[in-house]
Amino acid sequence: MPNGPSNAAKSLPAYQVGSGRKGFDLAAIDPGAKPFSCGDREGDRKALDALALELDALQNLFYADRRFKLLVVLQGLDTSGKDGTIRAVFAQTSPLGVHTFAWKVPTEHERDHDYLWRIHRQVPAAGEVMIFNRSHYEDVLVPVVNRWIGADETKRRYAQINDFERLLAETGTVIAKFMLHISKDEQRERLQQRLDDPAKHWKFSLGDLDVRKQWDAYQDAYQQAIAATGTRWAPWTIVPADSKLHRNLMVASVIKDLLLGLKLRYPTGERSLDGIRIE
Amino acid sequence: MPNGPSNAAKSLPAYQVGSGRKGFDLAAIDPGAKPFSCGDREGDRKALDALALELDALQNLFYADRRFKLLVVLQGLDTSGKDGTIRAVFAQTSPLGVHTFAWKVPTEHERDHDYLWRIHRQVPAAGEVMIFNRSHYEDVLVPVVNRWIGADETKRRYAQINDFERLLAETGTVIAKFMLHISKDEQRERLQQRLDDPAKHWKFSLGDLDVRKQWDAYQDAYQQAIAATGTRWAPWTIVPADSKLHRNLMVASVIKDLLLGLKLRYPTGERSLDGIRIE
Repeated sequence: MPNGPSNAAKSLPAYQVGSGRKGFDLAAIDPGAKPFSCGDREGDRKALDALALELDALQNLFYADRRFKLLVVLQGLDTSGKDGTIRAVFAQTSPLGVHTFAWKVPTEHERDHDYLWRIHRQVPAAGEVMIFNRSHYEDVLVPVVNRWIGADETKRRYAQINDFERLLAETGTVIAKFMLHISKDEQRERLQQRLDDPAKHWKFSLGDLDVRKQWDAYQDAYQQAIAATGTRWAPWTIVPADSKLHRNLMVASVIKDLLLGLKLRYPTGERSLDGIRIE
Repeated sequence: MPNGPSNAAKSLPAYQVGSGRKGFDLAAIDPGAKPFSCGDREGDRKALDALALELDALQNLFYADRRFKLLVVLQGLDTSGKDGTIRAVFAQTSPLGVHTFAWKVPTEHERDHDYLWRIHRQVPAAGEVMIFNRSHYEDVLVPVVNRWIGADETKRRYAQINDFERLLAETGTVIAKFMLHISKDEQRERLQQRLDDPAKHWKFSLGDLDVRKQWDAYQDAYQQAIAATGTRWAPWTIVPADSKLHRNLMVASVIKDLLLGLKLRYPTGERSLDGIRIE
């Protein structure tokens, strides 16, 4: 028997950053690691298929239960696979209860408000799953790397984000934040593929090359942001993502276990429904 | 010479609750007091007219400056004069930069989110003045008085509100919260007027009488909420409001001084505009 996710889950703490985690070191995590793999590609593929089906059933229950909201945050550098993760992990779920939002550079109207204003508008409602493709974490990455904000403002934003996420958590939102962690070599290959394949040109922009030049600064900014905002109520999971299959397997598995932990239930029907026979 | 607002402002600390204020006692503030009055009705009326004009000029400058946002929160029991205050204080300002929002019982869609979700959507943008007629404070008044939430949840909400307002303040929002403080006798007269005057029937509902029966519980809930959420970044001002004229004078004066304190300025024109002559 291949390792199921429940065995893999034992290795999860090494990849999670919650409250009180001292000495988190992003550089020490190997983007090529496969802690959630059974060691066999075919086995992993089957496990992922099974997970996608389980997630569909759980999401259905989540929608009916309506006691919780689920916010999934996907962060990662260009080509780290945010789109692909969403497609694979939520392959079987109904769009009725699963929503995604891909965050872009803020508009002028959005910039006239605090940076969490547009984020708060899009958080999930009761029974909903919302997946953020990028998020408010861009506001403590891009401006930090480009030195538009200093250390004081960066720390202030970490605190604001923690307060904001605490509000969400205390009002019923389960928050799962994933950093898709790829190596610089893997990014080179993926960018090159985008250049070489006309069907992938739409995903490439020359700006990606400038961002690639800031590789070390982004690793630093992620390191700082994750250490500062990995909390009890909104932990980060670092996902080794050089293997797409492993990345999908790990994200799906973590979300499944999170949903299982909620002890979801179908709401009990009204008493007055008892004994009714449809004629 | 009658006292101008600048003299009156000296008495303001006795009516304000910011950080570190210990022993705040709502019951000790006389709703019939007139600390901002010059002692003469005609003089007060003239002062208010002058203030409304000054507020128009300041709001114009505020709109052009665009470094700040202004959020004015008006709270108070039924008939305390929230509508009338808005009409009188902002009598001269342009609706271009001054917006109001009258909060009602949340809809089902709103209740599917945290209680600050709908509030955050309506906060002012850069250069805007937003006046809340009622606010998120209803969420620590109505459920407390009706015992829908316990002491722990109430305290959690105070902290959530303080965090939320700190985010707004740290991102450029000036927050002024006013509690319009009337006596139980004054409320009786105003409710009776609404019953006696067909033109005021639309403002009366039988529910108002039930709320009146909870008078003491509401005074308690206001006392607790104001003590817990009067902060450095979002202080409360208790406005003795049995006199409508005094209420308007005090609110207008506090907002004027707040705006003056911001050292507003017109943005400097672009250099390239220098020397251009329109022909």
